[in-house]
Amino acid sequence: MHVTDRLHGDLPERTATDAQQVIADDATLGTSGFGSVGYPKAVPEALADSGRDLDLAVVSGGSVGPEIDAALTDADALERRFPYQSQPELRDAANAGTVHYQDRHVSQVSDDVQYGGLADVETAIVEAVAVGEDWLVPSTSIGHTPALVADAEQVVVEVNRAQPLELQRVHDVYRPGKPPTREPIPLREPSGRMGSPRVEFDADKLAAVVETERPDTPYQFRAPTDTDRTIAVNLARFLESEIDRNPVFESALNLQFGVGSLGNALMSAISEVPVGDRTVTYWGEVIQDGLLDMLDEDVLAAASATSLAFSEDGQERFFADIDDYADDLVVRPADVSNNPTLVDRFGVVAVNSALEVDVYGHVNSTHLNGSRVINGIGGSGDFNRAASVTIVALPSTAKDGEISRVVPMVPHVDHTEHEIDVVITEQGVADVRGTSPRERAETIVEQCAHPDHRPTLSEYLDDAAEETGGHEPHRLDRVFSRTD
Amino acid sequence: MHVTDRLHGDLPERTATDAQQVIADDATLGTSGFGSVGYPKAVPEALADSGRDLDLAVVSGGSVGPEIDAALTDADALERRFPYQSQPELRDAANAGTVHYQDRHVSQVSDDVQYGGLADVETAIVEAVAVGEDWLVPSTSIGHTPALVADAEQVVVEVNRAQPLELQRVHDVYRPGKPPTREPIPLREPSGRMGSPRVEFDADKLAAVVETERPDTPYQFRAPTDTDRTIAVNLARFLESEIDRNPVFESALNLQFGVGSLGNALMSAISEVPVGDRTVTYWGEVIQDGLLDMLDEDVLAAASATSLAFSEDGQERFFADIDDYADDLVVRPADVSNNPTLVDRFGVVAVNSALEVDVYGHVNSTHLNGSRVINGIGGSGDFNRAASVTIVALPSTAKDGEISRVVPMVPHVDHTEHEIDVVITEQGVADVRGTSPRERAETIVEQCAHPDHRPTLSEYLDDAAEETGGHEPHRLDRVFSRTD
Repeated sequence: MHVTDRLHGDLPERTATDAQQVIADDATLGTSGFGSVGYPKAVPEALADSGRDLDLAVVSGGSVGPEIDAALTDADALERRFPYQSQPELRDAANAGTVHYQDRHVSQVSDDVQYGGLADVETAIVEAVAVGEDWLVPSTSIGHTPALVADAEQVVVEVNRAQPLELQRVHDVYRPGKPPTREPIPLREPSGRMGSPRVEFDADKLAAVVETERPDTPYQFRAPTDTDRTIAVNLARFLESEIDRNPVFESALNLQFGVGSLGNALMSAISEVPVGDRTVTYWGEVIQDGLLDMLDEDVLAAASATSLAFSEDGQERFFADIDDYADDLVVRPADVSNNPTLVDRFGVVAVNSALEVDVYGHVNSTHLNGSRVINGIGGSGDFNRAASVTIVALPSTAKDGEISRVVPMVPHVDHTEHEIDVVITEQGVADVRGTSPRERAETIVEQCAHPDHRPTLSEYLDDAAEETGGHEPHRLDRVFSRTD
Repeated sequence: MHVTDRLHGDLPERTATDAQQVIADDATLGTSGFGSVGYPKAVPEALADSGRDLDLAVVSGGSVGPEIDAALTDADALERRFPYQSQPELRDAANAGTVHYQDRHVSQVSDDVQYGGLADVETAIVEAVAVGEDWLVPSTSIGHTPALVADAEQVVVEVNRAQPLELQRVHDVYRPGKPPTREPIPLREPSGRMGSPRVEFDADKLAAVVETERPDTPYQFRAPTDTDRTIAVNLARFLESEIDRNPVFESALNLQFGVGSLGNALMSAISEVPVGDRTVTYWGEVIQDGLLDMLDEDVLAAASATSLAFSEDGQERFFADIDDYADDLVVRPADVSNNPTLVDRFGVVAVNSALEVDVYGHVNSTHLNGSRVINGIGGSGDFNRAASVTIVALPSTAKDGEISRVVPMVPHVDHTEHEIDVVITEQGVADVRGTSPRERAETIVEQCAHPDHRPTLSEYLDDAAEETGGHEPHRLDRVFSRTD
């Protein structure tokens, strides 16, 4: 199966400008891309530059780069977008209501497209490292490519020579069956393999192959702050006691970390935990630089995800040593990497960040002031809901301490009190398992809120308990009036 | 394996009054019971009547009867309670903050107890139809009994002669393994079997066997209202078009309905759907009277749940014909009946009710005015999150039309916009798949809100879009001020 050439067989090679012409003005596009890597670049840009009057819907795996979301938004060519975005231009359009954006749990999107009527894909545009007449090998992410290609009427492939052909060694493409006779996913351990590097399709779907040579825009990490480092220390402290206590972690520890600079910084916490002879494996959606360090240092036995979102330095390290890394690193479709059934079976510890958390343990990951979307829920719900231990890690304040990220009630709920086990800030750790809401509120305020904001939160709680009462006391008349 | 006697081997037979003495004053009890049936009655009552100074924690499968929750609350013997309740006395205590109550997703509780540190069970008190030295056969529900018995230091069994011994024919006890090497649950279809009728335990755990003869308190259904019937008609209309369109339902339709009078009324909708030669199966947590009718009429091929919560009439019908029903009816542990991995694989259509829904599709199932808990989330999250199609069905108004159940923002979120596909009221059907929040709001208001309340909701939305803007526009300063 190993291929040494980029192009195989009799292929409809086109320029990007020609290829974009096969796409209808009001098409629904399914694109590769997750963690802002592995997405098609030339054809979407050619669409944006075409001067055509376009009303496109775009479904991707996860976030993609500016060549899709910024270019198509700026060209006024984007009508609808699922399930995640991270480009400022598109974010502004979603917030203005000029692009219809819906953020969905990542794990569900393949099913949503194939069965749920989320979208009827006309053209799948996929970045690949190699292509044949009825197959392709994805580049730096897989995302929902297999489902989007299966659902599409036609497939356009960008073969990107800037992406190493050896990426084929890390890919494991497996397709979950169709309910109601869906078989369990036959993966016995997080580092296992069960598929092939290829996404296959009907040969008559292949409408165009475009050659490109354009690297992914590397991920930009900000340097860890003191707050990040203290959160990591608190996380390490919690994990140390939890793996000692919890029989799920007797011999192995499978971890997921959310995407981003804080997530990347938190990964370093693992190096500080005395894990004994436990096998430590990363089971998440995106592999970032922090994980390369841990693989290099043998802190981590293996890592599995759907995207390789490295910094420039990380890309260089990884591409230079891809053969070695391929032994311990697997890239899967997003409906496998994020599949809650596997998160459950592997007993994953999920560590995700948030915009804010409320005293009763509800979490806002997506909407500032309940109204303005930042990025989207991404895979956080996939992991939070099915994990053995669900941890929310965030700084206790925003805007230089002015605003508390621990609030009476979050104005948008992405994760509920029913699935959050532990809240961690730089102030401390609130293990809220087995607590009533009133106990939980006290613990979260005491352990996790910044001391400057604790009095206001406690006053709110006392007042709510006295004036309203109830299981989860609230003063709805003033719950959102910020007094701090 | 079929047993014809109630008691087997050398058993520590005791009266309930004697049996309660083996329990410590501050014990954590794990009890059988789900859907208010199959729970132990005599020993909890004896505890409540003992005059002892008790501080008990009680973990059950789901809801239990007054002999546990009312009696122990009234005796001031209850300190802590998981994961669900439905007795007025306990509800009042939870709302007063005098009993620490936490409602949890039902599917998680077995894992929470065994691994998650939710509770360390001292004594499991289990109602059975038969018992041996190291096994028991549950009565009308299984709930979390297998996990609670496994976690307990000692086991007290109430053998209830009022429960038919033939219940052994419907039970299928299977134990999911421990993560991270948990095997997939080897169930290939909703009506399949993979276990035995027995819950097994170490013989030295058996502390007492108490004989009783006390029927479960039968479930009281209110007669379906016109509103219930119209919601059922709307549901049938939606299902008819969905099974025609969605490839998941090509040859089979697996359905779950929430517990209660509305849920029971909605089940009748299925009889109105022209399903062709599809196999229709109920995959839920509780089997109620409506399902017996459908089994009798061959509308339903089979039904699977963790509890048999019938009315008095339903109990009589079922107990009289248990041998026949046993061919098509399976009762399982709650971590199997509610397991999201199976809901996913079986492509379940989940139909659950709610207190209220907001214009953006967030759902409140538990807390009136965000503060006062009614019952708990129960299994609704297990099904809603993993279903192929997630439907929330509720009347558009409460209090004789005075209050809208479609609101700008629910003051407590149990299910988020990220998992709700369809909202149904007696007004109509809002299929919100693939919609942006602004589109969703318009559809839900137009299709599902009562005409009397639509103007107020639309004004709110217009005002929020204009004054605040954003992806999900809200006026936090007045979102909870009821102007209707």
